[in-house]
Order: sequence, then structure tokens, then C-alpha cells
Amino acid sequence: MSTSTPINKLFTSIRKPEGLVTEADFAIVETPYPTIEKDGEFIAKTDYFSVDPYQRAGMNSPDYKPGPMSNFIVATVVESKSDKFPVGTVVQAIAPMSTYIKLNDTTPTTFPAPKTDKLSYNVGALGMPGRTAYFGAKYGLSVKPGDTVLVSAAAGIVGSICGQICRMLGAAKVIGTAGSDEKCKHVVDQYGFDACYNYKTLDTKEKMDEMMKKEFPNGIDCYFDNTGGHVTEAVWDNTAYAARVAICGQISQYNAEGGIGSKKVDDFLFKLVYKQVRVQGIIYSHYMAQEGLPQEANDALLKGLQEGTIKVDETILQGIEQLPTAFCGLYSGLNMGKMVVAP
Amino acid sequence: MSTSTPINKLFTSIRKPEGLVTEADFAIVETPYPTIEKDGEFIAKTDYFSVDPYQRAGMNSPDYKPGPMSNFIVATVVESKSDKFPVGTVVQAIAPMSTYIKLNDTTPTTFPAPKTDKLSYNVGALGMPGRTAYFGAKYGLSVKPGDTVLVSAAAGIVGSICGQICRMLGAAKVIGTAGSDEKCKHVVDQYGFDACYNYKTLDTKEKMDEMMKKEFPNGIDCYFDNTGGHVTEAVWDNTAYAARVAICGQISQYNAEGGIGSKKVDDFLFKLVYKQVRVQGIIYSHYMAQEGLPQEANDALLKGLQEGTIKVDETILQGIEQLPTAFCGLYSGLNMGKMVVAP
Repeated sequence: MSTSTPINKLFTSIRKPEGLVTEADFAIVETPYPTIEKDGEFIAKTDYFSVDPYQRAGMNSPDYKPGPMSNFIVATVVESKSDKFPVGTVVQAIAPMSTYIKLNDTTPTTFPAPKTDKLSYNVGALGMPGRTAYFGAKYGLSVKPGDTVLVSAAAGIVGSICGQICRMLGAAKVIGTAGSDEKCKHVVDQYGFDACYNYKTLDTKEKMDEMMKKEFPNGIDCYFDNTGGHVTEAVWDNTAYAARVAICGQISQYNAEGGIGSKKVDDFLFKLVYKQVRVQGIIYSHYMAQEGLPQEANDALLKGLQEGTIKVDETILQGIEQLPTAFCGLYSGLNMGKMVVAP
Repeated sequence: MSTSTPINKLFTSIRKPEGLVTEADFAIVETPYPTIEKDGEFIAKTDYFSVDPYQRAGMNSPDYKPGPMSNFIVATVVESKSDKFPVGTVVQAIAPMSTYIKLNDTTPTTFPAPKTDKLSYNVGALGMPGRTAYFGAKYGLSVKPGDTVLVSAAAGIVGSICGQICRMLGAAKVIGTAGSDEKCKHVVDQYGFDACYNYKTLDTKEKMDEMMKKEFPNGIDCYFDNTGGHVTEAVWDNTAYAARVAICGQISQYNAEGGIGSKKVDDFLFKLVYKQVRVQGIIYSHYMAQEGLPQEANDALLKGLQEGTIKVDETILQGIEQLPTAFCGLYSGLNMGKMVVAP
């Protein structure tokens, strides 16, 4: 191997986490610099790694095996045998979280990044989280003018954008929940929510119920759920008629000792009946596979960012060695807005 | 009062049921024969009372007060000051469950009954249960050709019709659950389900799970839920991608000691996410209020009954004094198909 071959590093799990994830569950290891041979292949250098709560959920699978962590990245092509992705192209991709990655031009999750001044937005507002927020608000919640909206994890990238998209779609009231008074203030000041409540202060279903009855005297029309837990449990007693609930994430459960779904909760299904409530699971890939929807989301998000109707925050840690810290920090409230690592 | 005034009797609850409902929770009492004075009013004599599981659910409300029971009936007008409902008109209505009832021609839930040879069908296949099954299959489940379907309480009037409607909409496979081997056999022989399983034999979530994995190797596309309980709990691990779940009833819970929703179940919300599952509460009145839908349901049900593609059963008890027996019998499996009482 030539001495000029760049060093490549990889973020990997080294054991299946039990309960709360820790930095000791992970390692940064050296990995071979990739080589390309076939037409269509290319090598890209990662500009930013996305670090997302859903990744932890996947590690709960009974057949989970420790190994390289994969996720959304934005990267710049440095070597190419692809006409579609020449050197210098900026791409969004799902790939092993390493400094250099080998890609090919036929993978549907690999595509040219939308143009933006902030490259990191490609793993945030203009990447999976922003689009998920858009799809969730528009197609999961079917927000219409005058609707009242509750968003859990409103300080997070998906929640914060979702609330702002709901407002763009005409929501009359947008309320959030978040994990600190500081974050709650930010959700109101920066993202324009009408109010935001600290779930660590309103730490029981009963306290949440009281807040909801005050904020939503006619019930919640739309609930965008990133957290589950006692916020969500209180919602079932506070839905408006024909309410819509979008289940995007359940971060409060990802580190549960018995695994996701092991927690026992009040059986709320009957509460859906008499109010004709709809609950819709939201997964990014479902909407991305539908003709026209990715472009529609990109256009809306880019317009919102340019006009200032969508504001976003990022927490960018420098150095691939920060990935374990970033990953575990998602559960200690380390980030404000999108958690991103630059290698 | 003239000696010729007919005796009027009323079905009433005399206390709030605790746990399993019993006949001692009810009474049949004499009540005054109604009088009409204003234009638009009329008196009808009940031909058939509907007796339905959902009625028990309403009695769990914290502010429930014992008193006259109301429900869907079919009745024939015997005195009238209404041009729209002259003497002899057969009406569907929601009314106190008494032999004679006073109605008026402006109440939206009072309307002329669809023409049928079997008057009792107006509280069954051509009444709320039949229409609920239709709305649930078509708009709750959005059944499309090739879908696989599971229906709980498949021997009941709503479940049995729903399965048959799903078949009419092109379902490739329709499986049911019911409460006895005899009922299961009937569901297959009479209603044309592909198979039906006794939930008292498959009496755990694990056994149900095993059945579902065998019957639905590619997952359940559509689940129509009348029962809740361990059948429903197993469904969350067996949904197909983009599955649809219609929550119509939760009969397994209506007699729960702590009230509906008090039972603790595995928190399944995250399971909706990665398979993009939709859960929709189904309430009759929601669809009845939409222009054109009641007629659409009537036409489809009448056609199915006439052509023999929809088969229904009724258990008709004679005498208003049978109402407590009929009501409690819903929970002991007394009925095959629709439970009806003729006064």
C-alpha cells in the first residue's frame, strides 16, 4: 500500500447495548481505504455524519450483531468511475460511518445533494430529518388550516421543523414538549411555537393531562410523536374528534431495559374509536419511494430556509472520534437541534 | 287515562355495573304511553330492539348515571302529526328501549327504513352493524384486491359482514377469530372465511402469534378489530408493510374491573413506525354524516343480501322482558350473529 493512501476510520459497535447506551458500546477503528474497479463505482469523503435516535432502536433487535454503524451522510466524491457522480459531486447517501466510503451510482438512497450554502443541512433540514418532518406534517398529520398541534421532542431537528411546517400549513396553535427549560424557551423564541413544556417538570401523565386540557380546551387535532412515554399516554385522553396522530419516533423507549415495546401502558385503543382517531406510523423511506414526493419536500424545505420561515439549529462535533459521544449525547440532551459529526 | 291506552314498557339500568354485567343491573319497568302534540311528532311501536356490545362500554363512563337504556330500533308508526312519517311508516331510530316511543321528523338519526323482507335486518345487516362493517372495510381498512385480512369476533354481526365485504372488495384471504369451535365452523361454512380460530383455545398472545405467522407468512394487510385483548396484541408483531388496522370495538375490555383502558398492554406504538402502519378508529356516526355514504352502504348491503354474497344470522329473543338476558348474553356467547329482541 502506498504511503499516500489516506487513513480511513470507521464507527462501529462492539457489543449489543443493554439499557442505556454508553460510549463503551462503541469504538473508532481503522478500516481499509476502499478501491473501485467497476464502472459506476466511486469513492466519497464524508463531510458530515448524521447521528440519529432511530439508530439506537435498531440495536434492540433480537438478532442484532455488533459491527459497523451505518447512517445518512453527506460526502464529496474524490475518485470516480461513474459518469453520473464525477469527482467533486456532493452526495447524500446511507453508508457505513467511515471517513471514506465506496458507493455506486445505482443505489436509490445515493443521490446528488440539494444545493445549499450549508453542507451540513444535507443531514438535517435538507436530509432525512427535514423530509421526515415534512412528510409527517403533510401526509401523516394531514394538517389543515385552523388545526391545533402538539409536537413532542420539539427542540429536536424533526420536531422543530415539523412544528414550523405545521404552521406553514395553517395550524392555528403549535405547542411543544422538550427536555429542559432552556430548550423550551428556544422552541418558542427560535421556532415560533406558541408554548413549550418541559417534560421533566411535567413528569407524570396527570401533569401532562392538565397542561393539555388547558392548552387544548377543544382537544388536540394533530399530535406528532417523537418520544412516546407519559406525553403520549396523556394524549389519548385529549384528542379532538377525527384527530390524527403521527408516530415518528419513541425515543423515551429506545434504551428500555426489556427492549422497545416491553413497557406496559394503558390500553388506549378504545379511545380511538369514539373520536374516530387515526394513528399513522411514519417512515422516511415510504414517502421517498413515491414519485414526486422527495422533490416536493426539498422545494418546501429549501424555500422555508431561504425565506426564514424555517429555522434550524445544529450541534456539530469535530472529529470522527466524537461519534460515540455524539451518539450517547442524544439521550443526555447534549445537542440543540441536529446532532452532526464532521470527521 | 282510557283503559284502551296500550301498556308501555321500558328497559332501564338500575345501577352502574361493576365488572361483568349481570341481569340484576337492569329492570323492565312500566312507563307512560307517550302523547304527541306538535307538528312533526309521531309515535312508533318497536318491532325490534338492537342489543349491542358498545352499549356496555358507555356504562363505564365515570359520570354514568343509571336510567333508561337507548339504542337502535326499527319501529312502525302508529300515531302521527308528521307528513314525512305517516302511520304505517317503518323507521330506523335511536330511542329509549321501550315498546312505544315518541319521535319527531327532524332528528337526523330517525329515518325511513330501507325496504327489506326481514324487518329485523334494520337493526342488523341493514342497520348500524351492517353499515359499520361496510364503512370499516371500505374506508377504515381501505381493502384492495389481493389483501390479506384478519377479523376478530368474526361470528358477530359486524365481524361476519365485514369479512364478507372484504371478500367483495377483492381480499385474497380472510381469516377470523371467534369464541367457540362451533362458531368458528359456522364462520367458515356460512360466511365463507378461509379459516377461523377459537380464541379460547389459542388463549395466549404467543399461540395467536404462531397462528398468524402460519396464516399470514407475508403479514396481515388489514385487521378489523372488534375485541382487543390477546388477539390484537399479537397483531402488532404480524402486520404487513403499510398495513391498516380498524378499531371498531374492544369487547374483551368492556367488563374490565378497572374500566376500559385500565388494562396494561405492551406498548406497540413503535411497531407502527417501521412498517408504516395506520390505525383508524371507526365510529358509525362519522360516516353516516357524510353525503352519499349511507346510501352507498345501503345499496351494497342490500345487493349482497339479495345475491347471497352476504349471509347473516340473527338470534331473536321474544318479549321485552328478555332484554336483560339478551344484553348479558352478548358476553356469554348466547347469540349467533345479531342479537335482537322483539317486544
